[in-house]
Amino acid sequence: MLSVPEYQSKFLAYLESYSFKKEPEGLYAPVSYIMHLGGKRLRPVLTLMAADFFGGDYRDALNAALAVEIFHNFTLVHDDIMDGASMRRGQACVHEKWDVNTGILSGDVMLIMSYKLFENYTAELQIALLKAFNQMAAEVCEGQQYDVDFEMRAEVSLEEYLLMITYKTAVLVGTALKMGALIAGASADEAETLYDYGLNLGIAFQLQDDYLDAFGDEKTFGKKIGGDIAENKKTFLYIKALERLDSEDAQLLRDLYELNPADSDEKIRTVKDLFRSSGIPEIVRDEIRSYTQKAFDCISPLKVEDSNKQMLLDFGSTLMTRTV
Amino acid sequence: MLSVPEYQSKFLAYLESYSFKKEPEGLYAPVSYIMHLGGKRLRPVLTLMAADFFGGDYRDALNAALAVEIFHNFTLVHDDIMDGASMRRGQACVHEKWDVNTGILSGDVMLIMSYKLFENYTAELQIALLKAFNQMAAEVCEGQQYDVDFEMRAEVSLEEYLLMITYKTAVLVGTALKMGALIAGASADEAETLYDYGLNLGIAFQLQDDYLDAFGDEKTFGKKIGGDIAENKKTFLYIKALERLDSEDAQLLRDLYELNPADSDEKIRTVKDLFRSSGIPEIVRDEIRSYTQKAFDCISPLKVEDSNKQMLLDFGSTLMTRTV
Repeated sequence: MLSVPEYQSKFLAYLESYSFKKEPEGLYAPVSYIMHLGGKRLRPVLTLMAADFFGGDYRDALNAALAVEIFHNFTLVHDDIMDGASMRRGQACVHEKWDVNTGILSGDVMLIMSYKLFENYTAELQIALLKAFNQMAAEVCEGQQYDVDFEMRAEVSLEEYLLMITYKTAVLVGTALKMGALIAGASADEAETLYDYGLNLGIAFQLQDDYLDAFGDEKTFGKKIGGDIAENKKTFLYIKALERLDSEDAQLLRDLYELNPADSDEKIRTVKDLFRSSGIPEIVRDEIRSYTQKAFDCISPLKVEDSNKQMLLDFGSTLMTRTV
Repeated sequence: MLSVPEYQSKFLAYLESYSFKKEPEGLYAPVSYIMHLGGKRLRPVLTLMAADFFGGDYRDALNAALAVEIFHNFTLVHDDIMDGASMRRGQACVHEKWDVNTGILSGDVMLIMSYKLFENYTAELQIALLKAFNQMAAEVCEGQQYDVDFEMRAEVSLEEYLLMITYKTAVLVGTALKMGALIAGASADEAETLYDYGLNLGIAFQLQDDYLDAFGDEKTFGKKIGGDIAENKKTFLYIKALERLDSEDAQLLRDLYELNPADSDEKIRTVKDLFRSSGIPEIVRDEIRSYTQKAFDCISPLKVEDSNKQMLLDFGSTLMTRTV
């Protein structure tokens, strides 16, 4: 297996070789723009890694990896419209640089482009890849809808929240890995095991995101700390804090999540104090460790080279010690 | 082969048996809503007809027919947002009944649902169907983009206009037929011939739409006559009239297409007079006849039962003598 930076550079080279410059320009220039905004390319790297992990050749997985990355960026383009976001990776969102209609239509064609990439595989493999991809794609939409629904609801259970982030974030991580495994000729069971690894890793990753958003270091995190709190997002931190706070403090937290002050600094400070006083930072870190461990436990029984297992574990560990 | 109303009712029965009632309701209720708004279901009927045409069984084509109809409705949901439309088939558009975000996300999941329906076919067949479907889906997006682009441009050539309606409308008609042919086990050549039949028929259908929008009977057409003129749409009628009018009248027509009067009745009357004085109604009808004939010419060399050929020709004729 190669190192993560090597997979990243192999993927980027393939991305560069792929022509997004088609007619009509109004449709495809935004696709090229979002695909070149950067990002860590973690999902396609996982597809490539999974292929080598099972003794395949990562080069056979490049098309599936690109499908994963185009799909991911399609969701970003449409989600940014829905969220009314203006910036993505430090640059203007597609619907800001162009307009909402362009964002909708270019997003649509990206979804179609991701499907088209599977045409590069043999019939039997294509069928297996598409089945995994179809299920994932529908679940990502369902996760996004749950996210929207939960914003409108007063109470969201921890179970519901975990289902939402599983659909919205983790299934794509799992499917990225599963597809690499299938391309390498792994058995259905082995591919499913790698999917489970990715699912648990994806959940841990999102919980880590929730944690960093409140307790990260602004200098390394790159975004303003407390964004989720300012936007009254019912994350794991909020839901767990409500469970643990006494009724008076719980009510205070609920009340704070009804406010949208112009200057949210004080609100963020108060909410973080409530989180701290109910032991949330430790609880979230425990939870992240537990999901990461669950992910790692999936790997150990697999009959592959130990050095390959170590690579996948190391990758998971790196993700979980990130500060950005 | 069955009659068109019989195919319609078989398709509707299959649509009813398909469950759109999934969780989360906020995502799938709009899908069920748009899929049950009615319409002539011409595209899925063509898929079923094509299967029987080549001696297959229309029942094997029901999933592909449903994919075609869900895809078509996905484009309606997203196009209605882009066009700022409020009504669709006499009812509120999805983004009016719910909101724009719901329209975007429910449209997305519809596109994915249409792909998922191909899972019901054997590997080799699935590959062929998806290849046709992928190309069509990308072209439909491209056609929509050309349509948007042309609204902003002063001049659009007849060739460009025909390419736009080919992509936006005709390729779906062609692909609906092609997929039915493939499911029936027709050869690649035969399937392609049926695609060409559909392509020409689709172009004729759109030109007929352009014609009826200006010269149809308001009582049977169901929409206000002159909608395209009021919206300054550069249809076949407008582009051809510019070619044929003397420079003074051509300039008058161009000037009228810069106006957006609150009451468009007089503008519509004047534009229609210009169309009439340059012989446009006859020219468009000739053009429609010519594309219909091209479509029919595709059918005759095929080695299938004459009665089946007659069914497909009759269907084309019915479409071209419609007043609605």
